Amino acid sequence: MQIALLGGTGDIGEGLALRIARDTDNDVLVGSREAEKAAAKAEEYTDKLPDTTVEGLENPAAAARADIAVAAVPAYHLSDTIGAVADELDDTILISPAVGMQRDEDGLHYNPPGVGSVTQLAAKAAPDHVPVVGAFHNLAAAKLANLDADLDWDVPIIGDDEDATATVTSLVEDIDGLRALSAGGLANAAEVESVTPLLINLAANNDGMHDLGVKFW
Amino acid sequence: MQIALLGGTGDIGEGLALRIARDTDNDVLVGSREAEKAAAKAEEYTDKLPDTTVEGLENPAAAARADIAVAAVPAYHLSDTIGAVADELDDTILISPAVGMQRDEDGLHYNPPGVGSVTQLAAKAAPDHVPVVGAFHNLAAAKLANLDADLDWDVPIIGDDEDATATVTSLVEDIDGLRALSAGGLANAAEVESVTPLLINLAANNDGMHDLGVKFW
Repeated sequence: MQIALLGGTGDIGEGLALRIARDTDNDVLVGSREAEKAAAKAEEYTDKLPDTTVEGLENPAAAARADIAVAAVPAYHLSDTIGAVADELDDTILISPAVGMQRDEDGLHYNPPGVGSVTQLAAKAAPDHVPVVGAFHNLAAAKLANLDADLDWDVPIIGDDEDATATVTSLVEDIDGLRALSAGGLANAAEVESVTPLLINLAANNDGMHDLGVKFW
Repeated sequence: MQIALLGGTGDIGEGLALRIARDTDNDVLVGSREAEKAAAKAEEYTDKLPDTTVEGLENPAAAARADIAVAAVPAYHLSDTIGAVADELDDTILISPAVGMQRDEDGLHYNPPGVGSVTQLAAKAAPDHVPVVGAFHNLAAAKLANLDADLDWDVPIIGDDEDATATVTSLVEDIDGLRALSAGGLANAAEVESVTPLLINLAANNDGMHDLGVKFW
């Protein structure tokens, strides 16, 4: 498959691009609003992984070729990013990993949009025929992008479309050290997304803990 | 110390009573609205753990003797339960483990009260001089109460009072298989509480998973 990382020059996009390129049989398309930035990042990723092919493209061009597009952008850019590629999404699964958070003096807090969660906001912004699946919400970007780090994390998957959810589950399981778990339909996204500020608060409050992910058992 | 489990005849109270009695040097007081019920449950726990002393008392009597009182009741009984023992709490730390949830066709959802979280609701219901600490939110009651099951779970701790939080952290760490982690102040409680419906949704949606807890790394 062709996997596009829209916003693939950012922190979570970098880690996903590198690990998908290294661990799976899929081709990686790095998307950006700027073609030159995408090309430069793609070259950087290919230098790290000489046996793989990573291409850099503007977001719409990346989306047009993608079987799966990951909206790897901050929550406040999500609707714009999806809107800019909406016409190119055809038989494409859209993955939403973004989380809405705000900081106060106590730490980070989950700050969902009015529709209930950022994943549901992605579903609202996407064309009706595009299945949206929530995944990759709870990954620490720096550790994800450090290919020397072995992962051992769970990835809760949320989606209303069975086929799309199964395809994303396979993709997640192909990445070394990630276990995909079904967390149910899109209506359950808030409980998944709100783990992310908790991970950041735990890292901030406990010596020696940083770049946290989560395991359930 | 004397540890009172208010509502210690219920599911989460039973597991905490048994494990505190077995694993720590503290005395356990099982509280209930009905003295006979408390006494019967205390006898049941003592039968399981013959070397320990577990006493059953009405909630106010248990609270009066407690160094730490755990409000081990459902969220919708929390304010009433705290109100009924408020006059007895003196140099007592109050632990709040309850979570507000509601079910719809998709699963369980976090349903916090207007003050932001159930732990903050406990702080509001408690007298001003009583430090409230959030802990034990994300434990699966059935596994907790099964003394043959080895635990390996994290317990995020939230609290604004440093001494009280340290005391609760020590109590948690004394229970075999539990690791206490600081999640910050009471304002961060919602992110901890909302893990609980996620655990239940994950158990409902993944074959072979049940009685889930969480580990962070």
